[in-house]
Amino acid sequence: MNRVSPPRGFPVSEFETRVKNAQVQMQSSDMDGIVLTTPQNFRYFSGFNSQFWESPTRPFFLVVPREGLPIAVVPSIGGPALETTWVTDIRTWPAPRPEDDGVSLLDSVLSELPRRFGRIGWEMGRESIIRMPIIDFDRLRKNISNIEFVDASPLIWSLRMVKSVLEIDKVREACLIGSDTFDLFLERVTYGATEVQMAHEFRKTAFECGIDNAPFVSVCSGLGGYTQIIAGPHEIAQTDGQIMFVDTGLLFDAYFCDFDRNFAFGHINDAAKRANEAVWQATQAGIDAARPGITAEDLWAAQNKVLDAAGAKSGNNVGRFGHGLGMHLTEPPSNMPGDKTVLKPGMVMTIEPGLEFAPGKNIVHEENLVITEDGCELLTRRAPIEMPIIQA
Amino acid sequence: MNRVSPPRGFPVSEFETRVKNAQVQMQSSDMDGIVLTTPQNFRYFSGFNSQFWESPTRPFFLVVPREGLPIAVVPSIGGPALETTWVTDIRTWPAPRPEDDGVSLLDSVLSELPRRFGRIGWEMGRESIIRMPIIDFDRLRKNISNIEFVDASPLIWSLRMVKSVLEIDKVREACLIGSDTFDLFLERVTYGATEVQMAHEFRKTAFECGIDNAPFVSVCSGLGGYTQIIAGPHEIAQTDGQIMFVDTGLLFDAYFCDFDRNFAFGHINDAAKRANEAVWQATQAGIDAARPGITAEDLWAAQNKVLDAAGAKSGNNVGRFGHGLGMHLTEPPSNMPGDKTVLKPGMVMTIEPGLEFAPGKNIVHEENLVITEDGCELLTRRAPIEMPIIQA
Repeated sequence: MNRVSPPRGFPVSEFETRVKNAQVQMQSSDMDGIVLTTPQNFRYFSGFNSQFWESPTRPFFLVVPREGLPIAVVPSIGGPALETTWVTDIRTWPAPRPEDDGVSLLDSVLSELPRRFGRIGWEMGRESIIRMPIIDFDRLRKNISNIEFVDASPLIWSLRMVKSVLEIDKVREACLIGSDTFDLFLERVTYGATEVQMAHEFRKTAFECGIDNAPFVSVCSGLGGYTQIIAGPHEIAQTDGQIMFVDTGLLFDAYFCDFDRNFAFGHINDAAKRANEAVWQATQAGIDAARPGITAEDLWAAQNKVLDAAGAKSGNNVGRFGHGLGMHLTEPPSNMPGDKTVLKPGMVMTIEPGLEFAPGKNIVHEENLVITEDGCELLTRRAPIEMPIIQA
Repeated sequence: MNRVSPPRGFPVSEFETRVKNAQVQMQSSDMDGIVLTTPQNFRYFSGFNSQFWESPTRPFFLVVPREGLPIAVVPSIGGPALETTWVTDIRTWPAPRPEDDGVSLLDSVLSELPRRFGRIGWEMGRESIIRMPIIDFDRLRKNISNIEFVDASPLIWSLRMVKSVLEIDKVREACLIGSDTFDLFLERVTYGATEVQMAHEFRKTAFECGIDNAPFVSVCSGLGGYTQIIAGPHEIAQTDGQIMFVDTGLLFDAYFCDFDRNFAFGHINDAAKRANEAVWQATQAGIDAARPGITAEDLWAAQNKVLDAAGAKSGNNVGRFGHGLGMHLTEPPSNMPGDKTVLKPGMVMTIEPGLEFAPGKNIVHEENLVITEDGCELLTRRAPIEMPIIQA
């Protein structure tokens, strides 16, 4: 491969823009600041990129005030690493300190923020969590008089949903490496191997192809179709009649691709073959429809029309036909009835129709794209219209 | 390798025991049930093992009542997968449903629990988070009259801290594969390569050696010692005088190993050499001290004594010399002053002394062990006393 990977990290100007955009929204939604506690949001505004979030022992806080620069409130172990980011105001406490792990320090930082609205935003709402003990959050909320804690999730997601050119470069790279991985994996899929063995082979291949990390490799299978797509791999051998689903979230510089491919073993029966083609066509309809100005619901409808024509029953248990994609494997919006989010250039989406064509028999396809000024750019190498059949 | 890996998953009896032990504690701590929302705790009581937790869109709830069997309250996409676990009472809602993602369903389940104490435990405290939007948690807490939400973290951690034989088998396997990985990696470390390249090589090697997943591979380096150990890899080439630290959390069947190794390039200066030996000896002192009946603080003291004698300054920014280990990369207790947790057979611990032997120059070692009836069993293949030096 002679492809040149995009550089890692972001220039300072990127973070300045993100903070500025957040501050405009804080102003219009009456917030004096927002507090970020989760890896992706902390990184979004600070550039701090670490796998240490795997350890639940110590909370990390980033305070973005309505005016001025972010303040990092982090355990001592994080101090030196934060100094290598663009953040200059770094406060640390000696951690772990179970009786007061950052709470009093954060309290003092929040209390000193210039107060105009008396409201601080937190990751309290949809598709968001707060990564700190809730008894500490409750304590803070009670202690800081005259400051109300409010939901900043809509603000944060509205920013993160529209990706910058440099963010799109990272997702594109993840998708390219993921596509290379599936191509190479197809040569290596072995008749009779188990889901667990296939998942190992897939991950090995992904690292050979140059991915940074492979948090999500779901391998599920069933005779002539699969029942579910989220809990696998298991020790189930792929022999005649099995259909195997491999879904993957691979990371390049902490940005995901998220797409799947299907494999048949020995032979594929007619019902599965027809279902597979219908789902492929539904995916194509989604890709063809994707452009600025339509809604996530429209993106669902374009796919659903094809599946309806193919005689689909009323939906499947996934609940939607794709979603946003970025630093999280799934992000808002959801391609489903009721999601009126208007697509804009820079939004990275998955197109993910699924069809339960017989009781407990599903076929799901998925591709990734980015909305452009006049349509979309497909980021993944398109699945073949016919499911590959692996022979003994 | 002719080693036979332990089987994946657990027999139903394992879950029955865990639930029974939790119920004994619920009884003595006045709780009518506990609610689990995070991957590790949900799996601990249900056996549900999925990478789908990477998607933040949908919450999952497991209710373990004071008496009787667990109740899963999960989004529709999780229904079929839950049916393959030992849990039989599975309630689903069509998700995503932003206006009510599981809240009213969970409300009804909790409201119908036999009420004796009027208290329900949640993952509210130390080293715990609640994986659902806090506005939904607040809504539930307010709506369910006469039920108080209390902290169940001490209950949960007290159970999870002491591992069963089958759990130890999984950590042992992760440690063995991790040890194989470091042995093979040593043959592949290349003078002049960057931290990023080394991390790729390490992960590739880990998958060759048979690991399931590699969420944590921290590669950090510095001239004659490193400043920090949590934010890496970066594009820093390993040339003469560099010391490179590779710390890894690898998963076998969702159980972690967590240990590190150090590598010098070209040559190692005397100060770093002395520091490295002191930290190795401190690790040995920790291993030698580990036995039932002493405390986590004692485990710290045994290591600290060696570092003190070697002329250590007052500690380092890590804040402790090791911790518990299991389904999380780090778990309670902490080997540090003030942690009076008494070690018991079945507790899996890391021994992790660190020494800042000059400003900004650290050496950190780490091994994993399990407390046995009469001492401990070392689970990792011990690091060499002399740091390997990689030549150009």
